[in-house]
Amino acid sequence: MSVRELAVLGTSSAVPTRTRNHNGYFLRWDNHGILLDPGEGTQRQMRLAKLAATDITRVLITHFHGDHCLGLPGIIQRLARDRVPHPVRVAYPADGEQYWRRLRHASVFHDTSVIISQPLTPETTHIPGDKDLHITTLPLNHSIPCHGYRIAEPDGWRMLPDRLRAHGIHGPRISQLQRQGTLTTDDGRTVTLADCATPRPGQVFAFVMDTGECANAVELARGADMLVIEATFLDGQAELARSYQHLTARQAGRIAAQAQVRTLVLTHLSERYDATDEPHFLAQAAQEFDGPIVLAADLERIPVPPRTDTPR
Amino acid sequence: MSVRELAVLGTSSAVPTRTRNHNGYFLRWDNHGILLDPGEGTQRQMRLAKLAATDITRVLITHFHGDHCLGLPGIIQRLARDRVPHPVRVAYPADGEQYWRRLRHASVFHDTSVIISQPLTPETTHIPGDKDLHITTLPLNHSIPCHGYRIAEPDGWRMLPDRLRAHGIHGPRISQLQRQGTLTTDDGRTVTLADCATPRPGQVFAFVMDTGECANAVELARGADMLVIEATFLDGQAELARSYQHLTARQAGRIAAQAQVRTLVLTHLSERYDATDEPHFLAQAAQEFDGPIVLAADLERIPVPPRTDTPR
Repeated sequence: MSVRELAVLGTSSAVPTRTRNHNGYFLRWDNHGILLDPGEGTQRQMRLAKLAATDITRVLITHFHGDHCLGLPGIIQRLARDRVPHPVRVAYPADGEQYWRRLRHASVFHDTSVIISQPLTPETTHIPGDKDLHITTLPLNHSIPCHGYRIAEPDGWRMLPDRLRAHGIHGPRISQLQRQGTLTTDDGRTVTLADCATPRPGQVFAFVMDTGECANAVELARGADMLVIEATFLDGQAELARSYQHLTARQAGRIAAQAQVRTLVLTHLSERYDATDEPHFLAQAAQEFDGPIVLAADLERIPVPPRTDTPR
Repeated sequence: MSVRELAVLGTSSAVPTRTRNHNGYFLRWDNHGILLDPGEGTQRQMRLAKLAATDITRVLITHFHGDHCLGLPGIIQRLARDRVPHPVRVAYPADGEQYWRRLRHASVFHDTSVIISQPLTPETTHIPGDKDLHITTLPLNHSIPCHGYRIAEPDGWRMLPDRLRAHGIHGPRISQLQRQGTLTTDDGRTVTLADCATPRPGQVFAFVMDTGECANAVELARGADMLVIEATFLDGQAELARSYQHLTARQAGRIAAQAQVRTLVLTHLSERYDATDEPHFLAQAAQEFDGPIVLAADLERIPVPPRTDTPR
């Protein structure tokens, strides 16, 4: 059975706290395992979350502030040590190439050849590598180049059994129609997918870290089933958020509302906040966004919400 | 009151486990705070151990395998972020200069000028910087250049009140004698420190990581009050220990016995072992060494044993 869920590895911004490790997220998406912004300690957090290096098929780095990338050396060396056999693509802002190289070869180890680097220029929109995932990126608005990500299942079709029957299509002819998009029946009629199926929009996951409010954040999150977004500050520190190009929980909620996402996940909290502040993150985001909101906690698993357009 | 104790931050070798973080040790020694071999996650472990970046006055790196140094970027960036005002010397094998530079500037941050690098050649024996600590180093026997460390309080004198009285020395004249080592009394006699005091050997801490058995390990640990030493394997894996240039618990015990240390601290356990194996580490080391042995646990504090030559 395919699983689509977010394993939260860490949820703190600049510095780790007792309860929150540096940032880190692992998205399990069918056969893909996408590690996002591994901060320091991600290797250990993965162990605690019962994830193995071999689960990783991709790494996406938004930018080269330490809380978003200092876990890379441990992860890379772990991929090498555990002899992970499959390619692991690592995307990051090309502007930070020198940091990538340092982190890639940060200390002495028996190297691996499976790591494929994918530097992203401000013009990069599509990140290649997977046929069954469309990964796109857009630059955000931070003090250094920072990329947000959108991971989308290609749109598909949901076959309608009664329509297939009506057109006399069954057995291997069904998958032929799915593959080709069109079919000539035995009696010479042309049948298209649209005659026998309804469009099934692909599921979408969006990841927006370290940015001031910007149109690209909304664009990346457009209609996403799950948006994971930084909410470093509360309203009381809105000025601080502005000056450091970060979001408040309210702004994160506004982006989610504008993008009409389904589930909003807030994370990347400033160390200044403790457990008593946490309800305010939810409340302030909820003033802008009326869908489900999760304030991420370390080692929590958050399922990508099931499709709404198919019967469950 | 001066405190001399080891705060254990992590105790695992190559990879972290659920209960053991990557290596990492903090030695509090009066006004000094010496961080040894910070592996990945040391920044967070310090937080859990209630230690702050500003507590660090020195860092000693034995070698550039990841479990002994991947915590450096987080620590350095934390020293910068927290605006630690005092110099922080970082000693490491000069052979790994390229790794030091990568870890020193691993990602984007507002840098600090307090870090002073101290690359060690195989010929380096003394590491300068502190008048009240003699820090010496010797190369060990590992697959890459690896340095062990010895941190020694200078030998001193314990003043004997009755002898001072007999020589008619009191008040500020006592500290004058301590400073100068000799004094001319009012009636023209020359009094030396040895006339009024007994030698008080300085306390010694030794740190031996990642090595096969070698004479330098014993030399560094000679007469130490506390020896912290790797014990990666048990007897059953002695051949593995030999081929990877690591120690078994028994070999660590033998080094402690040969060096006549007071307290032996075993750490750097292979991930293959779990809690049920731990008694064997103690038992196998105890077959060689008859003093107190501690199997280090994460976030434990181990006091440097009090002097035996002064009344308590």
